[in-house]
Amino acid sequence: MRADFLDLGIAETARLLRKGELSPVRIVEAALERIAAGDAVLRSFITVFDEQAMAVARASETMLRAGHDLGPLHGIPIALKDNIATAGGRTTAGSKVLADWIPTEDATIVRRLRRAGAIVLGKTNMHEFAWGGTSANPHYGNVRNPWDPARFPAGSSGGSAVAVAARFCHCAIGTDTGGSIRLPSAVNGTVGIRPTYGRVSNHGIVPLAWSMDTAGPITRTVEDCELVFDAIAGFDPRDPASVRHPVNRMSNKSDVDLRGLRVGIVPGYFFHHLQSAVENAVRGALDVLVSLGATIEDVAIASIEGNISAQLTIESAEPSTYHQRNLRERPGDYGDDVRTLLEAGEMMLATHYLQAQRYRALLRAEFLEAFERVDVFVCPTLPFTATKVGETRVVIDDGEPEDMLSAIMQFTGIASLTGFPSLNVPCGFDGDGLPVGMQIIGRPFSEAHLFRVGRAFQQATSHHERSPDETPWT
Amino acid sequence: MRADFLDLGIAETARLLRKGELSPVRIVEAALERIAAGDAVLRSFITVFDEQAMAVARASETMLRAGHDLGPLHGIPIALKDNIATAGGRTTAGSKVLADWIPTEDATIVRRLRRAGAIVLGKTNMHEFAWGGTSANPHYGNVRNPWDPARFPAGSSGGSAVAVAARFCHCAIGTDTGGSIRLPSAVNGTVGIRPTYGRVSNHGIVPLAWSMDTAGPITRTVEDCELVFDAIAGFDPRDPASVRHPVNRMSNKSDVDLRGLRVGIVPGYFFHHLQSAVENAVRGALDVLVSLGATIEDVAIASIEGNISAQLTIESAEPSTYHQRNLRERPGDYGDDVRTLLEAGEMMLATHYLQAQRYRALLRAEFLEAFERVDVFVCPTLPFTATKVGETRVVIDDGEPEDMLSAIMQFTGIASLTGFPSLNVPCGFDGDGLPVGMQIIGRPFSEAHLFRVGRAFQQATSHHERSPDETPWT
Repeated sequence: MRADFLDLGIAETARLLRKGELSPVRIVEAALERIAAGDAVLRSFITVFDEQAMAVARASETMLRAGHDLGPLHGIPIALKDNIATAGGRTTAGSKVLADWIPTEDATIVRRLRRAGAIVLGKTNMHEFAWGGTSANPHYGNVRNPWDPARFPAGSSGGSAVAVAARFCHCAIGTDTGGSIRLPSAVNGTVGIRPTYGRVSNHGIVPLAWSMDTAGPITRTVEDCELVFDAIAGFDPRDPASVRHPVNRMSNKSDVDLRGLRVGIVPGYFFHHLQSAVENAVRGALDVLVSLGATIEDVAIASIEGNISAQLTIESAEPSTYHQRNLRERPGDYGDDVRTLLEAGEMMLATHYLQAQRYRALLRAEFLEAFERVDVFVCPTLPFTATKVGETRVVIDDGEPEDMLSAIMQFTGIASLTGFPSLNVPCGFDGDGLPVGMQIIGRPFSEAHLFRVGRAFQQATSHHERSPDETPWT
Repeated sequence: MRADFLDLGIAETARLLRKGELSPVRIVEAALERIAAGDAVLRSFITVFDEQAMAVARASETMLRAGHDLGPLHGIPIALKDNIATAGGRTTAGSKVLADWIPTEDATIVRRLRRAGAIVLGKTNMHEFAWGGTSANPHYGNVRNPWDPARFPAGSSGGSAVAVAARFCHCAIGTDTGGSIRLPSAVNGTVGIRPTYGRVSNHGIVPLAWSMDTAGPITRTVEDCELVFDAIAGFDPRDPASVRHPVNRMSNKSDVDLRGLRVGIVPGYFFHHLQSAVENAVRGALDVLVSLGATIEDVAIASIEGNISAQLTIESAEPSTYHQRNLRERPGDYGDDVRTLLEAGEMMLATHYLQAQRYRALLRAEFLEAFERVDVFVCPTLPFTATKVGETRVVIDDGEPEDMLSAIMQFTGIASLTGFPSLNVPCGFDGDGLPVGMQIIGRPFSEAHLFRVGRAFQQATSHHERSPDETPWT
């Protein structure tokens, strides 16, 4: 049985909490029950903090009743990807290497979320160390897609997106290096933002590739996403990559019209080499944006083709450096796929890595120039919908099977390399009822603008209102 | 015959120019004559812009007489290392690859110097592409040390330091990646500053290792150095590494006392493995600082030992990336030594490069913490005085001969890796009359403070007043 209030958005939940029609305890209880009923199949959590969450819910309720209102996240259940440190709570990063790590200190974003009153339900499942595009997790079980448990939920923040799509919590924090927030958001039908690099602190998060790692919220609606983003964004002196840049507060909610918005499309790349269901859904979304007042413009980006290999190069060399010592001392504690990827990264030449970094500066400069003519770019998040669990290759457009790790990054590398913010918004379904997502990519620090576009889109459409059939997993 | 006014400092020269007792034309004429007389032996210039310099001197004189005073550098002859682009003027970077390159645009620092009224005499000789610690230049002749033409002038900005030491010009701009301003300044008895990384624009300068490359002035006195630094420092939107940070103007000249200055020494490293003449000179300089009111403190830096190999790793991988294409297409145009270094860099693994970058962050953090207890560090600039031209190995302390490339970087890597500013100040001579230099290393953006310490030292001592015997080269 499903508690209907778990379907509500954060703002509406907050309103009912303050009216006394809902309580943190009821919400957390219902969420924990729902996890207990459905997560044996979905495997979206590695650790659930049942007792702690209930204790905090009770205290949270007392606080609220006593007038200690911590804001819109007060009493809202959230989950954290398991590479995010929680004081006193096991943090495995999906690995055996860290299976017994109990941090003594919260990550900065956890500190900020708790200060805002959010209640941490638990830690979500993920690719081992957030690495590997297609792999199952050999240590904590394979996360499954709630829209069809035979399908994969993408990664590496698969557990986070699944927990949100399955209505286990209102929000789950993910991390995105090469696409790890946006990809699972797309294939599970959730909203997810990769903020501007440096905008959200990485302090206390196990690194994958430090020059690209970025944490951000996964939610059901754009409005919820913005509420959580506002709570976690901002400068942190403890993260050397953190940027001092003011965070614009929540954009005007009544603003549903997009007149004057200039949307860029890169011809020959954005709608090339992808499933027709994905193309149709994203083109349909563009039509919606046009109906709201936007104009679409073709914008050539001369060097765009190199982005997948540059991203894979960086995402290979940096993790292999970080893991070098553990990989030598305890190779058997890594899963086969991740160990192989890390070993491959050790063979990479410094010149390859540095050419990729130089390419990156070029790509960024070309996009920055393009942003003088358009306000955002819109493209698919990935070229296909959820494949079967365990597949390592994918067929696109009746072509030959391709390696999924590079195929899945066709559209996510742009934001990962440039550091620009990118928002995944559900924009339709394929013939099997599997979700399709689109990316809205913006200028550095333009998150509020992306939220405005995404919110206008969600107000004009209803894709985000559909929820998965629960029969196969509850 | 030497025009005595070439011995004067910039401020005194500026005063005489304004009193009409000197003129830009007389100064430039005298400088060009002196180059013609001495540079056949010293080979400090690759290109001398005789005609252009004279034309500018005449115009400069007219301007000054007409009341168009551009400031303290107006009419002052300077030289530029030949990796710094000059519009319409050949810029070889000491290489055959760029032998015919005539830039269409000045580097940002050249633009700033010209706007400040400085007169560019020509382009100074350097290691090929600023790479190779010990090598001669196979394309433009070996620069020689004016204190003893049988000795090497160090590099890579050897020509710049020699041109200043030989009184060919008041200032020459050098570039410093691993020590290339400070090392030739030390062995030629000049002042030279490596500014904070990002403080002086690299736009228009041929890169060596872009994460460390830093341009700065070489002069005879600290006062002159500060005057030129003030003209070239500041944010440049065209250099992606440029930093927005206000430049403190010239410090108070009357302030010769250093009461309260805390000078740090790293025990076991700063006076370890170096010639006794160098140790004695630097320890003598510390005594002078103490006599001016400073206190000396031992400060342990736990990870200091790794700095040479980290620096060599980065200084190897980045140039090999930058030169990769040319090295494949025209390997024969590189000198043997630089080609070998570049080829070696191509073998380097990405993980080695990235471990060096991680070490760098650690070293920087340790020094930043130490800077809470001391204001500056003082150490030798290199462990030995000028060796014979052509030597590739050096003997220190009656030990075994060592490879000079790593031996020469024993003390320069600290500032190169951390990005901190470092000022070389002449502090004595060895038994053969060869100059010894000390480094004053400060916090990020503390150049004005380093100048204050250096100037106090020069006011209390006379090392900078001694000049080389010209007999062997004029």
